[in-house]
Amino acid sequence: MYISVIGASKCSKDIYKLAYEVGREIAKKKAILICGGLGGVMDAVAKGAKEAGGITVGILPGDNRIGVSKYLDISLPTGMSEARNVLVVKAANAVIAIGGEYGTLSEIAHALKMGTPVIGLKTWDIGKDEFGASRIIRVDDPISAVEKAYELAK
Amino acid sequence: MYISVIGASKCSKDIYKLAYEVGREIAKKKAILICGGLGGVMDAVAKGAKEAGGITVGILPGDNRIGVSKYLDISLPTGMSEARNVLVVKAANAVIAIGGEYGTLSEIAHALKMGTPVIGLKTWDIGKDEFGASRIIRVDDPISAVEKAYELAK
Amino acid sequence: MYISVIGASKCSKDIYKLAYEVGREIAKKKAILICGGLGGVMDAVAKGAKEAGGITVGILPGDNRIGVSKYLDISLPTGMSEARNVLVVKAANAVIAIGGEYGTLSEIAHALKMGTPVIGLKTWDIGKDEFGASRIIRVDDPISAVEKAYELAK
Amino acid sequence: MYISVIGASKCSKDIYKLAYEVGREIAKKKAILICGGLGGVMDAVAKGAKEAGGITVGILPGDNRIGVSKYLDISLPTGMSEARNVLVVKAANAVIAIGGEYGTLSEIAHALKMGTPVIGLKTWDIGKDEFGASRIIRVDDPISAVEKAYELAK
Repeated sequence: MYISVIGASKCSKDIYKLAYEVGREIAKKKAILICGGLGGVMDAVAKGAKEAGGITVGILPGDNRIGVSKYLDISLPTGMSEARNVLVVKAANAVIAIGGEYGTLSEIAHALKMGTPVIGLKTWDIGKDEFGASRIIRVDDPISAVEKAYELAK
Repeated sequence: MYISVIGASKCSKDIYKLAYEVGREIAKKKAILICGGLGGVMDAVAKGAKEAGGITVGILPGDNRIGVSKYLDISLPTGMSEARNVLVVKAANAVIAIGGEYGTLSEIAHALKMGTPVIGLKTWDIGKDEFGASRIIRVDDPISAVEKAYELAK
Repeated sequence: MYISVIGASKCSKDIYKLAYEVGREIAKKKAILICGGLGGVMDAVAKGAKEAGGITVGILPGDNRIGVSKYLDISLPTGMSEARNVLVVKAANAVIAIGGEYGTLSEIAHALKMGTPVIGLKTWDIGKDEFGASRIIRVDDPISAVEKAYELAK
Repeated sequence: MYISVIGASKCSKDIYKLAYEVGREIAKKKAILICGGLGGVMDAVAKGAKEAGGITVGILPGDNRIGVSKYLDISLPTGMSEARNVLVVKAANAVIAIGGEYGTLSEIAHALKMGTPVIGLKTWDIGKDEFGASRIIRVDDPISAVEKAYELAK
């Protein structure tokens, strides 16, 4: 079971704490965490997962490992800049979006395109689908986020 | 000057007609059209540009040229599936989004992340930025779309 | 018909002249030239093709068009560094390798893997295949290179 | 320390055994194994590393995890076909090539282009560099391969 957590490389303390708790829950459930490997939400979720004994993977936009989160078991430079966002999503059975800027929105869209469920915590609102259901499954806390990710994982 | 037009591979007649007109305007302005090279909006915009004497380029998700729009001067298979969306956007000085599904949303997000202006015709609404400005510059007709693209091109 | 010409971004005057002549031949045959869009062999072949009235496309490793050959009709930034080599080859019905460093060798290998014929002018020697045939079709002059590319194009 | 092992998805028993032993040595040295995640050499090296208690990562060409080696701790679909070869190499401090077809040759070339040392066991011979040194560091056994990889790792 692979869960990707997406979010911005800079974030508020509140968002950092949320992402940290999501990381802990992912580790408790024995899922492998995939993230973008940099700061902010990516660092927070990796820290949470690592401190709870989980496995953490960062897929990096750059050519090398300089400046990456220190809570990664595996870090993978791609040298592909934005195209690495596609890889972060492609590896996941479910995606959890926390806060986020345009990069996060691109990952949400790629996930929905691939048919991968997206759980959202204080993230983008992109409206409802043709059946009136929210495209992003909105939750209010880290425990619900990870439970929903497990429940809906493809 | 490169303008990328993004939109779904299947679309209504109304959207097809809009995209066709956008293609014509792009050709009249002597910009090079970049698109995803498949059906729907991509085919319509290429047809419009080609019939008005423009140059049309399709960046394809697959390994070959089977099933691509017949209105392309240059078609480029990438074999990279969704990651090709990043390339469609990366080539552009400005992006025009017409209608669209999740793939289009991913391209809108990648463009905004890169600082490339996005002009929208009957497309996604992703709200306003921190300064209260619409993230997507919304227009009502093909002529305005291409004029705005020229005005804001980076 | 798409022909990709591959070679290093720095080259001797002799290699530059060879590449220039290959470009001219490609244009005379009405094929579209694909190259990596930078200096050396890429610049030479684009110059030759452009001056003989051909269409020239450069697929760039970087995020922008700074420093690219001025003989390109279409230039496409990818932001994907080395992974763009795959795209240069993927677009081709046949590949012509002229001189070249490791980047060129990677493109030769990708082409052979895809089953795309590789014609070689003063380039790498990677031996014979299991049937005793040279893996790279070796020729001695630009006219033969382009004729062979046409003859073997997939 | 990341070591990528490259080789074909089909191989002889002798090559399989060599790759298996290389995997064991990598695990004993506590390096993380990166490979392409499929059969043949990729499966063998992952099996060897896993059975010796190492960490194994497979970077996959396809969209999903169907048919991948069962000895991977982490498997990452990319959906990028040949462009994933670049990623296998980019993650490495050193590369060990075992046997191999054209895909392997492309990875050898990408590694040398990036300045990453390539150690070879019964693999391609691409000659000597301008200083008369073999471009691929040739060794005869798995222990020497991993020792050289450690010694030369960038």
